[in-house]
Amino acid sequence: MKIGFIGLGIMGRPMALNLLKHGHALRVWSRREASMQALLDAGATGATNPAELASDADIIFTMVPDAPDVHEVLFGDKGITKGARPGLIAVDMSTINPIAARTLASDLDALGIDFLDAPVSGGEVGAIAGTLSIMAGGKPEVFARVQPYFACMGKTVSHVGKAGAGQAAKAANQIITGVSVMMVAEAFNFAEKNGVDLVRLREALMGGSAASKTLEVHGQRMLDRHFDPGFKSWMRQKDMNIVMEAAHALGICLPLTAATAQMYNAVMASDLGEADQTIVIKLLEQLSGIRKD
Amino acid sequence: MKIGFIGLGIMGRPMALNLLKHGHALRVWSRREASMQALLDAGATGATNPAELASDADIIFTMVPDAPDVHEVLFGDKGITKGARPGLIAVDMSTINPIAARTLASDLDALGIDFLDAPVSGGEVGAIAGTLSIMAGGKPEVFARVQPYFACMGKTVSHVGKAGAGQAAKAANQIITGVSVMMVAEAFNFAEKNGVDLVRLREALMGGSAASKTLEVHGQRMLDRHFDPGFKSWMRQKDMNIVMEAAHALGICLPLTAATAQMYNAVMASDLGEADQTIVIKLLEQLSGIRKD
Repeated sequence: MKIGFIGLGIMGRPMALNLLKHGHALRVWSRREASMQALLDAGATGATNPAELASDADIIFTMVPDAPDVHEVLFGDKGITKGARPGLIAVDMSTINPIAARTLASDLDALGIDFLDAPVSGGEVGAIAGTLSIMAGGKPEVFARVQPYFACMGKTVSHVGKAGAGQAAKAANQIITGVSVMMVAEAFNFAEKNGVDLVRLREALMGGSAASKTLEVHGQRMLDRHFDPGFKSWMRQKDMNIVMEAAHALGICLPLTAATAQMYNAVMASDLGEADQTIVIKLLEQLSGIRKD
Repeated sequence: MKIGFIGLGIMGRPMALNLLKHGHALRVWSRREASMQALLDAGATGATNPAELASDADIIFTMVPDAPDVHEVLFGDKGITKGARPGLIAVDMSTINPIAARTLASDLDALGIDFLDAPVSGGEVGAIAGTLSIMAGGKPEVFARVQPYFACMGKTVSHVGKAGAGQAAKAANQIITGVSVMMVAEAFNFAEKNGVDLVRLREALMGGSAASKTLEVHGQRMLDRHFDPGFKSWMRQKDMNIVMEAAHALGICLPLTAATAQMYNAVMASDLGEADQTIVIKLLEQLSGIRKD
């Protein structure tokens, strides 16, 4: 199998490197030529554009910022579809709207190209360590062919349904992780205003039914006032907006997710987009008259 | 130390039994005489009213439905304060508004009675097993004297601050557990409407940063459509309203908690108060046009 990788940024570069480390020959392309160097140094070959890369590939992974970027790499002037051979599998690992993913799948299907949407969670740390969670949507037989390559990049690899299901699973992940951060901030503020020792509170709650990864990790961040990212607020806002756009288009009622999205709009309006997502507690403190640093 | 226990319902009865099992002589009283029998059978002595019980007690635990009940037991015609000796410690383990708890503490202090608010989480199962989480507010030296008795009833016993802090910690627990159930329901509905296999989704999410006790336990309940209680929706509504009343009085801004409280009002309006709290997913399914059983 000939493997290609497009998009070599913070996430894509370590993911591609992990494919190389597992002994897979790799051809790469990136919009920014400088981003390719680390991969070329590690033994990958370079392509001059996505079409040229596609002319000699069986599977191409893409990892780019958003839906328009995926579309450009696939359908642009020198896009993958301009050079693809029949039977190519295109695997988009970017995080985009599930509706956009379904459209891509169906447009590619018409051209004889198979598609998987396979977004990841776990961040840069997980990308480097090869411990990402990968949630894939698409045909089972296509997933089966790509699975050995997913295993080079991720620890938990799940086939969660048909086209778009991967992005929807990622969105469900974002609903829970996004709402959870704000929920812990609300609980902490309520407790603080009532004179509770928050360090002991977090410990006590971690022993019971309120326990969660978010309370453990982001709760500790809030106690430490450790607002360096981490996961930046503008990325949280972007992810919440992807969810809300899809929910609006499909008529899904998400009261808590909507309120969380609104609060990250307010975080942006306070010029706090570069701070860690836990900064939302600071905004809620102001709204509750709690004065801190 | 002479120990009394008032309120022998679903929670109070097993808690009092656990004190007896650890070898502590116990005097009990309950509004419903029938509730006392199990304790008398197990070796407790009975009192005719709270005042009489207080006349020969060093510590009295109360476990009753709500703030007016606690107030009646303490300050009613034959209440604890009518018979209490100087130096009595009153420990209320009911779940009530933290503001009400602070008022009780200060009114009792004026009468020379020490007070701890020490609500629990863990439900009937934890009460029977003696594995409750107990979150206590009050003076450190008073907490220290009661701690050996708490240890008979609970696994995690935390002194989280001054008077009212125990109730506030319990409220923080309710904020997180209440919001979490609705949040998981939103994530599941979004995923389902996008064709995701929910069983695989839950598994995948449990492996990452979305992991929580709620996703594990109540997520599984939602997949099983297991809406027998569990924790009844009307109790969830009551707890959310306690939080919102206190938040309103103290000027604490809780957007997600407020939205969750509203949704349980809607659950009640649909005559689903006796169903498990996870029934909220059914309401959200209707609001999103998802048709199921």
